[in-house]
Amino acid sequence: MRIRFYNARILTLDNSFDIISGELWVNNGKIEYIGDKKKDMPIFDKTINVENNLLMPGFKNAHTHSAMTFLRGYAEDMPLETWLNERVFPSEAKLEEGDCYNLVRLAMLEYIEGGITSCMDMYAFEEETVQAAEDIGMRVVLSDPMNDFSSSISRQEELYKQFNGGSELVSKVLGFHAVYTTSEPLLKELAAIAHKYKAPVYTHCSESESEVQNCIKEHGKTPVEYLNDMGIFDYGGAIYHGVHLTDKDCEILKQKNVSVVTCPSSNLKLASGIASVAKLAEMGINVGIGTDGPASNNALDMFREMYLVSTLQKYLLKDASAMPAESVLKMATVGSARAMGLNDCDCLRKGKCADIIMLDLKQPDMQPENNIVKSIVYSASKKNIKMTMINGNIVYMDGIYYIGESLDNIFAAATQTAERLKGGKVL
Amino acid sequence: MRIRFYNARILTLDNSFDIISGELWVNNGKIEYIGDKKKDMPIFDKTINVENNLLMPGFKNAHTHSAMTFLRGYAEDMPLETWLNERVFPSEAKLEEGDCYNLVRLAMLEYIEGGITSCMDMYAFEEETVQAAEDIGMRVVLSDPMNDFSSSISRQEELYKQFNGGSELVSKVLGFHAVYTTSEPLLKELAAIAHKYKAPVYTHCSESESEVQNCIKEHGKTPVEYLNDMGIFDYGGAIYHGVHLTDKDCEILKQKNVSVVTCPSSNLKLASGIASVAKLAEMGINVGIGTDGPASNNALDMFREMYLVSTLQKYLLKDASAMPAESVLKMATVGSARAMGLNDCDCLRKGKCADIIMLDLKQPDMQPENNIVKSIVYSASKKNIKMTMINGNIVYMDGIYYIGESLDNIFAAATQTAERLKGGKVL
Repeated sequence: MRIRFYNARILTLDNSFDIISGELWVNNGKIEYIGDKKKDMPIFDKTINVENNLLMPGFKNAHTHSAMTFLRGYAEDMPLETWLNERVFPSEAKLEEGDCYNLVRLAMLEYIEGGITSCMDMYAFEEETVQAAEDIGMRVVLSDPMNDFSSSISRQEELYKQFNGGSELVSKVLGFHAVYTTSEPLLKELAAIAHKYKAPVYTHCSESESEVQNCIKEHGKTPVEYLNDMGIFDYGGAIYHGVHLTDKDCEILKQKNVSVVTCPSSNLKLASGIASVAKLAEMGINVGIGTDGPASNNALDMFREMYLVSTLQKYLLKDASAMPAESVLKMATVGSARAMGLNDCDCLRKGKCADIIMLDLKQPDMQPENNIVKSIVYSASKKNIKMTMINGNIVYMDGIYYIGESLDNIFAAATQTAERLKGGKVL
Repeated sequence: MRIRFYNARILTLDNSFDIISGELWVNNGKIEYIGDKKKDMPIFDKTINVENNLLMPGFKNAHTHSAMTFLRGYAEDMPLETWLNERVFPSEAKLEEGDCYNLVRLAMLEYIEGGITSCMDMYAFEEETVQAAEDIGMRVVLSDPMNDFSSSISRQEELYKQFNGGSELVSKVLGFHAVYTTSEPLLKELAAIAHKYKAPVYTHCSESESEVQNCIKEHGKTPVEYLNDMGIFDYGGAIYHGVHLTDKDCEILKQKNVSVVTCPSSNLKLASGIASVAKLAEMGINVGIGTDGPASNNALDMFREMYLVSTLQKYLLKDASAMPAESVLKMATVGSARAMGLNDCDCLRKGKCADIIMLDLKQPDMQPENNIVKSIVYSASKKNIKMTMINGNIVYMDGIYYIGESLDNIFAAATQTAERLKGGKVL
C-alpha cells in the first residue's frame, strides 16, 4: 500500500520544531519520502489532499492499563484504599478469558481517535491485548505485570520470546507490577533474566509517598535504590510515575539510562502528587508521558496529559516560563517512543514507521496560527485529530474508524463484560 | 420556533443528578415541557431524535476575555512581566474599532463547539462584543473592565443602562479590572453607583500572591477587605480567581453573598497557584468556573476546567475523595449561572431559557456507561458535544455551525486582525 499526502504542512520532530510545506509518501508501512512535490512520482494506491493541515508523529502513550475501561466511572471520588479494595480488586477477580479482548478494544478506539498510535500496556491476559491490537491495527508494547499473585518468571520469559520478533505491531519488555507487590526473590530472578537477555525492565515506581516510606522501612532504601542494588536497571528501562524521587534516585536513573514515564492526570486524581518533570529533563533523564489506565484518569487523551505536564511544572516552580510547549510535545512523541523502545516510530523521517497523525488546523482552538507547536500543547484537543495512521494503515479519518468492526459491537461487548465484572451492581 | 427532542436522556441538574428518559420541548426560546411522551402534542417546527444521547444545561463560562484570541500562541512560556509588558500591552495598544468584533467571534465559535452557552466577558469595545453575540447567537454578560486607564464611571453607567433590559442575549454588570489598576477615588465612585442601582460588582481579585501582598503594603488590608470596607460588595457580585484568600476574606465573601469564579487552567499556566475551591464550597460560598481568556489558558474549554477543579483539590488536600464530580458539574452550570446573574439559564425546567447541549454518549470515552455524571467530568471532551442550543436556537450540531457566516471568513478576519496587532512580527 503506497499513499501520497500532498498540500501538507509537516512537523517532523526530527531534531527540529520547524514546520515544512510539502509532501509525505508512505510505502509498505514506512515513510518513503518527505519533501517538495516531485516531477517523477510512483503510482499510488491512495492520494490524500491534506489541505494545508498538519502531519506529525502520532502520540505514544508510554503507560496504560487498557483493559481497565470497565472501571471508568464505577470507582470515583473514593479514598485510595476503598477504591482498590472495594471496587478494583473484587471486579478484577472476576475476569475471565475473552474479557480483556473486549475491554482493550474499547480503549484502543479512544487511542486512535485521540492520535495515539502506540501504547505501552501493563495487564494480565496479554494474548488478548495482542489479539485486540492485531484486529484494530494498534501498535502495542507489552510491559509485564508480574507480581507475587499473578504471572511468574517462566511465563514472563516465555511471553517475552513469543511476542518479540513476530508481529510488526507487537513487542514485549520485561517488567513487574511494583516493589510492594513483588517479593525480593522474584525480583532477583527477574534481574537474572534481564541480564540474560541484556534487556531493560519496566515497573510502577515511587508513585505515592507511602510506597517510598514503606520501602525505606522494610529495606532501608528507596524503591529506586532497592531495585538498582539488585541489578534490575543494569540494561535501562523505565519507571512509571516517579512522583517521589530523591536526588540520589535521579542520579541512579540518569546513570542507568532509565526513563521516567510521567502520568500527571492520574497522579492528581489519586492525590499522589506532582512529579518533578522539569528537573528530570534538565538532568538529561529521558521523560515519556502516559495516560495511566481509565480507572484512574479517566480519559486516554494525550492532549490532557501534555497540558498538565507543562502547566503543573509552571505551578510547582512558580515560573510561567518553566517547561515550554516544545519540550512537552517532544516528550509525548520522541521521549515516549524512546522509553518504549520504539526507536523507529519516534519522528517523521525516511525509513521510519508510518505512525502519523493529521491535525485539523481549521478549528477555532488552532486559530489564529500564531504558533502551531504552542497551540498543539496549550489549546488543541482530540477534536483536532483528523486522521490517525499506524504502520502505514489509516485506522481513523474524519470521524470514521477503519477497524473492521462496528463501534456498536465493541461498545456492547465492553458493556456486557463490565456489567458482569461489577456483579450487576450499579452505583 | 417550537422544537421537540425525543428518545432523550435528560440530566436536568434541577436540584438532582438523576437522569430521566423522555422528551424535552422548546418553544420560543424557553423550555416548554420535560417528561414522558404525550399523546396530545402541538405542531413542531422541528423534531429531533436524540437517539438515547444526553440533554443537559449548557456550560456557563463565568470569566473570560473573549477578544484576546489574537494572543493565543503568541505570548507563551514567558515570565509574567515579560508576557504583559512585551506582548500583551503593546499589542492591545494597537486595537482599533472593529478588531474586537473579529476576535470575539472566533472565541464564540469555540464556546459553542464546546457546549458553552453563555460567557461573562470583561474587555473594552463592549458594543462590538454585543454585536458579535447577536450575530453568532451567543448569550453574554458584560463585566465592566474599568480601570484608571480606560473607561470611566459615566461610561460604565451609560453602558449599564444601555445593555440591560434590551436584547434577550445580552446583560451587563458593574465592575472594574482589579485593585492594582484602579485608584481608590474611582472605586468609591463605583461603590456609589452599586448602591444607587443596588447592583452586584465584579472584578479580578486575589489572583496572585504579589497582588495581595502589595495591597496589604499599600492599604493595610487584603484586596477583599479593602473592597468590602468601601462598600463595593454590599449587593454581592463575584471575584474572579480568588486564589489567595484569607479566612477573613472567605467570611466576608460568604456574608456579602459574593461568588468566587475559579479559573484553574489559567492559574496553573501563569503560576498563580490553586484556589481552595473545596473549602469555599464547604463554607457555602457559591463557586462558578471560568476559562479566563485565550491569552492565558489557552483553550476555551469547560471540560478542561472541570477536570482541573476536581483533581487539583484532590491533589491539594491529598484526598482522592475530595471535590466529587457532581459538585464540579454543578459549579460549571448552576454555580456559574448564579454568579453571572443568569438565574433563568441554570438548569433544565419548564419556563427556563432553552440553553441546552446534547452530549454524544456513543463515543469511546463515555463507554461503558457506568456513571454518566462522573464521565462528563472525568473523561468527556468537547468532541462529545453533539449540539448546542442557545435561547432556543441551535447554533451548532454534528460539527456544523449555524451562525450565518462561514468559519473561513471568521478565521480570516481574526487572523488579519491578529497580524496587524502583532505588528507583522512572528515569533
